[in-house]
Amino acid sequence: MASHGFWGLGAPENAGDNTSNQSPTTPRAWCQAAAQKLPGGIGSKLCALLSVAGEGEKPSEPTSTKLDETTVGTCGCNKPCNCLKATEATVGFSDLYSTDLLPALDGDMKTMTFLQEVVDILLAYITESFDRETKVIDFHYPNELLQRNNWELQDEPETLDDILISCRATLKYAIKTAHPRYFNQLSTGLDMVGLAADWLTSTANTNMFTYEVAPVFVLLEYVTLKKMREIIGWEDGRGDGIFSPGGAISNMYAMLLARFKMFPEVKEKGMSSVPRLAAFTSEHSHFSIKKGAAALGIGTESVICIKADESGKMIPADLERKILEAKQKGFVPFFVSATAGTTVYGAFDPLIAISDICKKYQVWFHVDGAWGGSLIMSRMHKWKLDGVERANSVTWNPHKMMAVPLQCSALLVREEVRGQRGDIPFTYHSSQCLLSLHFRIRGLLYGTIGFEAQIDKCLELSEYLYNKIKDREGYEMVFNGKPQHTNVCFWYLPPGIRYLEDKEEKKKRLHKVAPVIKARMMEYGTTMVSYQPQGDKVNFFRMVISNPAATFEDIDFLIEEIERLGQDL
Amino acid sequence: MASHGFWGLGAPENAGDNTSNQSPTTPRAWCQAAAQKLPGGIGSKLCALLSVAGEGEKPSEPTSTKLDETTVGTCGCNKPCNCLKATEATVGFSDLYSTDLLPALDGDMKTMTFLQEVVDILLAYITESFDRETKVIDFHYPNELLQRNNWELQDEPETLDDILISCRATLKYAIKTAHPRYFNQLSTGLDMVGLAADWLTSTANTNMFTYEVAPVFVLLEYVTLKKMREIIGWEDGRGDGIFSPGGAISNMYAMLLARFKMFPEVKEKGMSSVPRLAAFTSEHSHFSIKKGAAALGIGTESVICIKADESGKMIPADLERKILEAKQKGFVPFFVSATAGTTVYGAFDPLIAISDICKKYQVWFHVDGAWGGSLIMSRMHKWKLDGVERANSVTWNPHKMMAVPLQCSALLVREEVRGQRGDIPFTYHSSQCLLSLHFRIRGLLYGTIGFEAQIDKCLELSEYLYNKIKDREGYEMVFNGKPQHTNVCFWYLPPGIRYLEDKEEKKKRLHKVAPVIKARMMEYGTTMVSYQPQGDKVNFFRMVISNPAATFEDIDFLIEEIERLGQDL
Repeated sequence: MASHGFWGLGAPENAGDNTSNQSPTTPRAWCQAAAQKLPGGIGSKLCALLSVAGEGEKPSEPTSTKLDETTVGTCGCNKPCNCLKATEATVGFSDLYSTDLLPALDGDMKTMTFLQEVVDILLAYITESFDRETKVIDFHYPNELLQRNNWELQDEPETLDDILISCRATLKYAIKTAHPRYFNQLSTGLDMVGLAADWLTSTANTNMFTYEVAPVFVLLEYVTLKKMREIIGWEDGRGDGIFSPGGAISNMYAMLLARFKMFPEVKEKGMSSVPRLAAFTSEHSHFSIKKGAAALGIGTESVICIKADESGKMIPADLERKILEAKQKGFVPFFVSATAGTTVYGAFDPLIAISDICKKYQVWFHVDGAWGGSLIMSRMHKWKLDGVERANSVTWNPHKMMAVPLQCSALLVREEVRGQRGDIPFTYHSSQCLLSLHFRIRGLLYGTIGFEAQIDKCLELSEYLYNKIKDREGYEMVFNGKPQHTNVCFWYLPPGIRYLEDKEEKKKRLHKVAPVIKARMMEYGTTMVSYQPQGDKVNFFRMVISNPAATFEDIDFLIEEIERLGQDL
Repeated sequence: MASHGFWGLGAPENAGDNTSNQSPTTPRAWCQAAAQKLPGGIGSKLCALLSVAGEGEKPSEPTSTKLDETTVGTCGCNKPCNCLKATEATVGFSDLYSTDLLPALDGDMKTMTFLQEVVDILLAYITESFDRETKVIDFHYPNELLQRNNWELQDEPETLDDILISCRATLKYAIKTAHPRYFNQLSTGLDMVGLAADWLTSTANTNMFTYEVAPVFVLLEYVTLKKMREIIGWEDGRGDGIFSPGGAISNMYAMLLARFKMFPEVKEKGMSSVPRLAAFTSEHSHFSIKKGAAALGIGTESVICIKADESGKMIPADLERKILEAKQKGFVPFFVSATAGTTVYGAFDPLIAISDICKKYQVWFHVDGAWGGSLIMSRMHKWKLDGVERANSVTWNPHKMMAVPLQCSALLVREEVRGQRGDIPFTYHSSQCLLSLHFRIRGLLYGTIGFEAQIDKCLELSEYLYNKIKDREGYEMVFNGKPQHTNVCFWYLPPGIRYLEDKEEKKKRLHKVAPVIKARMMEYGTTMVSYQPQGDKVNFFRMVISNPAATFEDIDFLIEEIERLGQDL
């Protein structure tokens, strides 16, 4: 019989009790067998689908049975279940509430179907995010956005259908941060292994207080931090470290440790027991150094800014001068934060020279490698971090160049500071990123398909952009020379401004160009690049590349788009 | 024709170009149509499955075609695809690496199949987690655990197959925090809507720096915090607030704001510009108050502990006495932290009396409702928080009693503190929990199926436990009277200890009982409850219930299990 042969030959092996070594005799039986082979959500969904198909079924073959209460329990779901309910759930969640899901009795099938529905929405979104035909953003102003979905919180519970509608709306109006033409932040892109680990971490939903309550995660934290310390260059990966919810916190932890190391009594007695402290960092460093000093009761005025050269690197001679100056004024220098990859220029401070000064004056040497730390994974670019192994502590954010999902920041410390670690007020008890980072590292540590390749490619793309615009008409670079990181800082001068003689007028009009082009980018949704002023420099574009999805064509597109959107200004 | 009728009647509507208003004529066509109806991962997986089935297929009907390159592109996936690759991927990920997934060219199908495989693992884990037949934990010591899976980080990249194996191993050895018999932490349980939102948040992978880069999430933050303030009782939900990575940080933020409010110059000039400060909190309060003071440069010695009564509540008269004492010593009282739901006893400090004292001495009144704040959702229990609306700031952790996935802590502030908010060094830029909380609230705010029902049930269960053991032979309560929260603190005295006359000997032996029973619980994997000493009280069990999955039977089970495991001690 033709249809028998069709299904029989393709039937999965060991498909069920009633079919062992025998081909399923009906399409329904085959589909049931197939459903059994599929674990979890797919099996249940297929199973629900079969029930839908079965509802209109006429008993036309002896072996096929009409769908009724008795067949429901043997639908292929591996265990007694009630597929009719699942079917209802598939057909519409409009009568179901979150309380109908697990741990509700008989909540299994509804839960599987609901979560699978959510996953289908997410999978579709992921594919769309990488598609250049898709808008980076479908932008609306707050009031308009409020009207486009019911975001307000009502006192009446909403159905699962409403929740699913909100899931879709949330993604529709969110920025596609994985989009190959989204260049706005230092952290762009979405890695699939990292994402899978993040979903798993959410599902495990565990705190990391102790080994007792999170054996696997505590073990992974140990292994992963040790590996990071090895990469930094500390012998056998010795030292300590902690994951934190962001680079700003990691930097503050470093300052906290430096203070405690020099004045352990500060923990009990506070700053009144300590002389006036001074911290040092370059004028191009991240604002978190000042914010940390404000929080710790040190005060922003005790953070002394060191001059940077034209390309944004700290000038070591100025550091030494200011340390001496501070000492003369009665301050105690306790902390120097060098930046490996500044936020705007992507500059790397000269770590070896700075470490020499720190050693000479016995000051804690911290390296803020939140943005540039990942270059250590590249044989071609790691020289920019030469000297990092001399640091007392290092901030490193794998959620930036290493495409680990947000937020993944580590503070690595050269000395074991178990005693001090207790001084940190907020260990990151649910390290959302830990597993993602671990899996990312497992997936591609070194070698031709490793992080190195991804990082080198991002730097190659930025060099391509730099070479393309440095002598191009209508462009001016913010600083001379090849960028050290993927930051390319430039002005675009539309024809109407390009030839203005009045320098003040030119500056004034140029200041408005980047904001207008950016607003138009968002309106069209084609791409996004950030801009800012810096010191006496008017608004310029800061292009950064950290998304493994970006290509040379995307760089070409960016240039064309800036010119298209800015030519009339 | 029978088989035609079978499939035709059940065929989905508008199943594809070739089938509109016409039933698919073959089982294959029906399955293709079905695959088209399923978006994302399921469609592709079903499609891959069909290809597997099809590989051995013999062309037995005119309408069925042999699987070759030409059929691959029309397999039902909605767009041109290459199902053979997907099939390979389904069959084994042992030749694939993370770099084969998106954004790799042709990475779509592999990505969908890989992520679906992960989701299937997660869905199976979720079902298992709620199953009382499953172990709460499959416990192993670190060295043993290291051997049971290859957790070490190699320099060679691993295949996707290895990653999937690690996904399974991670879950196998993790604690099932959603298990109905896992009582170890204040945050237990897993809510499906919250989890779905968490998966979505991971996928959106966005920072929340500005509206520009996260329009939806910034809007939701505003709406959600406003709702929480309304619930606290602040008119029209006015005020300010922020989500943070945990209650300890929220408490520290509160202290930071209180200090800044009284001495705004502290931001620039540090603690040396400020008189010696004093903070006050009960001896039963959370350790984060002292840790916060250590970090902020105030010092732990400036945190003055107020006496608690026998049931763990702060004694207001002692607060006033110690404020006066501190003032006499030259300290400036700036911060009182009352606890609404202490960690061990679950006690609620008398907020109205404390607020009167704060008002009298013009001290910032903070309520640490990390654990007990959620009782405000219950009409039956909210009286325990009477006076919370007088607070200057409130910490509230919806990841505890409200089963939002970890970590979800909010600091709510009565005054708008936009200017001060800039003073906080670490806004939680990727608020992992925000969407989960929003969806949770959407799903069940009030009413019979709301949070109220879940919270009331947890309190009912703890009262059931309390009533069952308070006069039972072999049990002794740590404090008298019905617990205010779900914390039930008790000793179990095995027969061998129960009748000892020597009080010191009895105490000494009793101290060891809870640790041994707990170790045995973990060995068997049947349940988990925490224990600790407190002051001069030897180790006792602290039972807490926050998991909506727990039932009366689970409480009965716990008592039986403690007696079973402890009877020989």
